[in-house]
Amino acid sequence: MATSPPPTSSAAVTSSLTQLIAAELKAVDELFARELTSDLPHVNALVSHVAKFRGKMLRPMLVLLSGLAAAEMTRGEKGGGGERNPLTVEHVTAATVVEMVHMATLVHDDVLDGAEVRRRGATINHLHGNEAAVLLGDFLISHAYHLCSSLDSASPAAQGASRLIAHTTNIVCEGELTQNFNRQNWSLDEKTYFLIIYRKTAALTEACCRLGAMISTERQPWVEALATYGAKLGLAFQIVDDILDICGSQKTVGKSLGTDIEKGKLTLPMIHFLNHAAPQHRELLIGLLESQDHDRIERVRQLISPGDSIAYARGEAQRLVDEAISALRVLPASEAREALVEAAQYVTARDR
Amino acid sequence: MATSPPPTSSAAVTSSLTQLIAAELKAVDELFARELTSDLPHVNALVSHVAKFRGKMLRPMLVLLSGLAAAEMTRGEKGGGGERNPLTVEHVTAATVVEMVHMATLVHDDVLDGAEVRRRGATINHLHGNEAAVLLGDFLISHAYHLCSSLDSASPAAQGASRLIAHTTNIVCEGELTQNFNRQNWSLDEKTYFLIIYRKTAALTEACCRLGAMISTERQPWVEALATYGAKLGLAFQIVDDILDICGSQKTVGKSLGTDIEKGKLTLPMIHFLNHAAPQHRELLIGLLESQDHDRIERVRQLISPGDSIAYARGEAQRLVDEAISALRVLPASEAREALVEAAQYVTARDR
Repeated sequence: MATSPPPTSSAAVTSSLTQLIAAELKAVDELFARELTSDLPHVNALVSHVAKFRGKMLRPMLVLLSGLAAAEMTRGEKGGGGERNPLTVEHVTAATVVEMVHMATLVHDDVLDGAEVRRRGATINHLHGNEAAVLLGDFLISHAYHLCSSLDSASPAAQGASRLIAHTTNIVCEGELTQNFNRQNWSLDEKTYFLIIYRKTAALTEACCRLGAMISTERQPWVEALATYGAKLGLAFQIVDDILDICGSQKTVGKSLGTDIEKGKLTLPMIHFLNHAAPQHRELLIGLLESQDHDRIERVRQLISPGDSIAYARGEAQRLVDEAISALRVLPASEAREALVEAAQYVTARDR
Repeated sequence: MATSPPPTSSAAVTSSLTQLIAAELKAVDELFARELTSDLPHVNALVSHVAKFRGKMLRPMLVLLSGLAAAEMTRGEKGGGGERNPLTVEHVTAATVVEMVHMATLVHDDVLDGAEVRRRGATINHLHGNEAAVLLGDFLISHAYHLCSSLDSASPAAQGASRLIAHTTNIVCEGELTQNFNRQNWSLDEKTYFLIIYRKTAALTEACCRLGAMISTERQPWVEALATYGAKLGLAFQIVDDILDICGSQKTVGKSLGTDIEKGKLTLPMIHFLNHAAPQHRELLIGLLESQDHDRIERVRQLISPGDSIAYARGEAQRLVDEAISALRVLPASEAREALVEAAQYVTARDR
């Protein structure tokens, strides 16, 4: 298992990752569009705009690769190895549902953050106002649950899928509420930070892997291994996102940056800095976070970057990626498992 | 069947309505509180605040009374008449789910409307900011679906309940999006107005009655009769709400009024006025709707009230109430059916 993967270009990594599941990702795209089509033209116009934000498709990929990994293993055990594609319509449906849930959280997050740019395009709230953005998020989540409700009756393997997804969105909302509650809390500790990012981000990536696996296999240790992988990967992904919010280039990342600073949300590098910097530097950071200065984002970046707080956060992300990869060890080797290893390595290598 | 019920005090009407289902309404209250309890104290604090907005419990009442009406009829047909309460845990669950969906739409509506007062208390957005209100609405809807997902597996009678609810929230979102899209559209016609209020309000009351009925009986004509009743009642309810937004007293109604005027949302009395008033009065109304004058709400009220536009809207509401009551004719007489007639009459009699 890799512990320190070589940096790779994100585009190259994602294209090799998606080879195994190209047909299913296309099916997710089609189902996404079909489920959201309305008889009302103005609703379709809004939805087609939000479809442009679709980016990495990380969450559908996790469902499909987990499903493939678990299915290949089951097939291998049975001494099979036939040509039949082990991914079913339930995998595609679950993958589409999690993408809709994710898009809904992005649209509402942009309202909460007052963000203007997302995936190089103007956000819905910036273009059409907060009202349309709140409603569009509601529309997406409603359609996610609607699509999801077709899962339970579809096959015994998918039993409980909609309950798992609804349970996960409960957790995600609690994470967002906790983050919102802790804005401007300059004493936020690491434990609470990890509680927030587990709930707001990792609970969903964990559910993605669990869903894909449970549709493919009844072997609980494999389902749990993939769920652990998903949770650790989600934590690492969010830490990297939080680092990019401070250090990234908006041009490369493609979305509004510095929103954590603007909204007074402490993230791991800032928490580390506040716990380890000299008192006068600590006061300086809090002063900048509390100020309305137009250049405060740049000044926070300049204050934090020279020390070891960014490196500390990168190390935590790397540790979680290593743990995610380790969790996969209980599964037999397969192309899908290798793709999941690659996906985990991509998380720390990415610059957007 | 009543066509023109005597005006009655809301309090008296609701207390007689709820007698039949008092135990189940209490169970709804308890399940509502239990499902929303979090391990995070700040989440519980927000939720306990929103619980104070709980008002008429119209939607749970519709589920329970429809369930009772359909069940009593089935029992009557079988020559029974025993003492067993025909309302099941599935009825209570469905009633709790629709109340959560309704509360979620109220919380998000208050964000969209910038409303400050709801059921005599400050709104969540006014107290805790739009961020918390968006997230709390998401939290409520997520828990509604979570609770809902327990329905399908609970009993064959409840099969399809979660799909129906998700389908309904799809429709509700489209209604809200269409209303938002038509703000400041002074040419909005009655047909589009009815499309909006069907989707944003009546689709849910229709689903309430359908859910209650389908859990109790497999007799489709009865289920459809109750669904029709629910749809017509919802339309009438929304028309009266829109009249109260212009003519009501904030003290009596207990929520911010004049928000339709402030937000440029044309409602039935205004549409009628614009279609029938003299050109100079028409221009005056549009001018007031487009202005930012602090007294524009009062001036719109004074402009519209003397004519017959309010009476026209009241007449439409009464027609729909009569049609709702007529739809119940296919059902055998029962106490529950009488309570539904009473509920319909309450809709036009209410002043809040």
